[in-house]
Amino acid sequence: MRLVDVDTPALLLDLDTFERNLDRLDQSLGGFKVRVRPHAKSHKCPEIALRQMAHGAVGICCQKVSEAEAMLEGGVMNVMISNEVVGAAKIARLAALGKRARVSVCVDDAQNVADLDAAARAVGATLDVLIEVNVGANRCGVNPGQPVVELANRIAVSKNLRFAGLHAYQGAAQHARTPAERRNAISKAAQQVRMTLEMLHEYGIKPEIVTGAGTGTYLHEAGSGIYNEIQPGSYIFMDADYNRNLGEDGKPLRYFEQSLFVWTTVMSHATAGRAVVDAGLKALSVDSGMPLVADLPGVEFLKASDEHGVLKLPQRSPLRVGDKIRLIPGHCDPTVNLYDWIVGLRGNKVECLWPITARGAFY
Amino acid sequence: MRLVDVDTPALLLDLDTFERNLDRLDQSLGGFKVRVRPHAKSHKCPEIALRQMAHGAVGICCQKVSEAEAMLEGGVMNVMISNEVVGAAKIARLAALGKRARVSVCVDDAQNVADLDAAARAVGATLDVLIEVNVGANRCGVNPGQPVVELANRIAVSKNLRFAGLHAYQGAAQHARTPAERRNAISKAAQQVRMTLEMLHEYGIKPEIVTGAGTGTYLHEAGSGIYNEIQPGSYIFMDADYNRNLGEDGKPLRYFEQSLFVWTTVMSHATAGRAVVDAGLKALSVDSGMPLVADLPGVEFLKASDEHGVLKLPQRSPLRVGDKIRLIPGHCDPTVNLYDWIVGLRGNKVECLWPITARGAFY
Repeated sequence: MRLVDVDTPALLLDLDTFERNLDRLDQSLGGFKVRVRPHAKSHKCPEIALRQMAHGAVGICCQKVSEAEAMLEGGVMNVMISNEVVGAAKIARLAALGKRARVSVCVDDAQNVADLDAAARAVGATLDVLIEVNVGANRCGVNPGQPVVELANRIAVSKNLRFAGLHAYQGAAQHARTPAERRNAISKAAQQVRMTLEMLHEYGIKPEIVTGAGTGTYLHEAGSGIYNEIQPGSYIFMDADYNRNLGEDGKPLRYFEQSLFVWTTVMSHATAGRAVVDAGLKALSVDSGMPLVADLPGVEFLKASDEHGVLKLPQRSPLRVGDKIRLIPGHCDPTVNLYDWIVGLRGNKVECLWPITARGAFY
Repeated sequence: MRLVDVDTPALLLDLDTFERNLDRLDQSLGGFKVRVRPHAKSHKCPEIALRQMAHGAVGICCQKVSEAEAMLEGGVMNVMISNEVVGAAKIARLAALGKRARVSVCVDDAQNVADLDAAARAVGATLDVLIEVNVGANRCGVNPGQPVVELANRIAVSKNLRFAGLHAYQGAAQHARTPAERRNAISKAAQQVRMTLEMLHEYGIKPEIVTGAGTGTYLHEAGSGIYNEIQPGSYIFMDADYNRNLGEDGKPLRYFEQSLFVWTTVMSHATAGRAVVDAGLKALSVDSGMPLVADLPGVEFLKASDEHGVLKLPQRSPLRVGDKIRLIPGHCDPTVNLYDWIVGLRGNKVECLWPITARGAFY
């Protein structure tokens, strides 16, 4: 099937670009001694996770138990849930996964540690547990230093838990625009982790894993001498928001190329200067701004309603009703979550359909 | 099952409130002679559409062919697609639906009229066609007056199309905050439709249907003497954005009550003043602002990331890890589209699970 015959809206993946992005991550890490554990929340697709594993990833990250379940079903047998899992039903499912595959989870609460230990004991499993440390994202995680030591000691006395390390993700730094902002944020995060590690060492605790990092900052974590595992996710796809990050020369960085697009049809062009496409809020997440129009300089995506995207056209635009165009999503992760499959393209031909089996897997 | 045992995130519908909202729409329309054709893009759920039909609705509106297909599968046999349908594949599916049920569609383009006619002829169907008129929303639709006459004449000579009327939805007015803004916008829209109707009458064309209106303005269309069909959608659910619309007394209107909630768990509370819930961008659409926290005065939903919602807590908040709370979505339609089923509650007990069969139906 040719691209032009693919009905819209559809989620397109340019396979050549996707594969170049996989290679580029490897190339950029040539001088560093870090393991790669890409984040599957970006793609929710075992086909992609398996390709990342084939590229040397030690496993993948998920945010939810149901995401991890989908990945295990798809043959990915090493999953870190880079998030807290709370509630008896979810914890029981997590413990069951721990019997089937290598699964780890994060904690930032003493009662949650006790709940995880009890659930693992009930099924005869041992769960790897990482302590989430707040290194500036101000979301989950205990503060660096003494709170980490206290929680590590609780894990140490929990018979069915194994203390696996620290999860110290600085999410707020990923989209900081200038290299200096990103470098400084990760430098501070690494200092806080270093201080915490020194305190843990005093108690004889040596975390095996120190993990964090996203597509925006992973080279800083990799070069810190502190982190030994990184979790980039968006690098395979990129999006309009990540493409606004700047390099040292003040120009957009674009080390990774845009491989993900929303394919859409012009469904109305009744007025000069305005066209409407068939992709709106239910085909595109606008949380990080409107999508960009690929391939058509001067055409702007103005606003989205449920099922409509309004385009502002330049004078003498040749765009006509029925034309299909590519949009660059503002934010890749929640956009992917709106689709049931990815249309993989080799040039202008459809090569594969990859099911997004963890679509909607937020449980 | 009790509410407290429902795992999170989940989409909750308070059935008593939902049923009151159905009744209130009827009550508010007591003095008007308009047909009700609720918009199914809000709920995407045949179970709800059938209840609206049982309340006297003449049919429902959809935005997409796939949405209409899901409604027909669910037993709703009278569907107006309040939108343009473009592209050979979609038009062929639409024509096929026209053989099975009463289906109508909107147009704003002459070539699209020809394409619809040819597809209907190919399967021996007759399609009802409405002309979409731009009455201020500045999205799809031809301008009022002469452009409508020209398109109506094209439809009149299309053997497999029947000119059914005008679709004149003023979407931009629905969330205008003051009653005066909403009234003025619909007054202007009705004037433009009246002028267009007069021009059509000169050509001997008498549209059967004049349709439009949403939850924010439907009483104005109903009282206009011009519109004879209305399409409110959100009134069954409501959302944080609609709840900001004001009444004549300058206070939030709230004629319809909030029946839709996102059920979420506190998954982290490692720092005083901040808690994190397990519903983020993949469980809530934030296009119209952040959700509100129900039941807990003083607690604010600050920001959402993919799978996290960060809450700002007042001093001495009793909230603990594992507590479940209800959120009021910022915008109901794209939030519903993130879920596969609705959990219907009678008080604090689960009474039903309604599948959202048109979830992701944007084709």
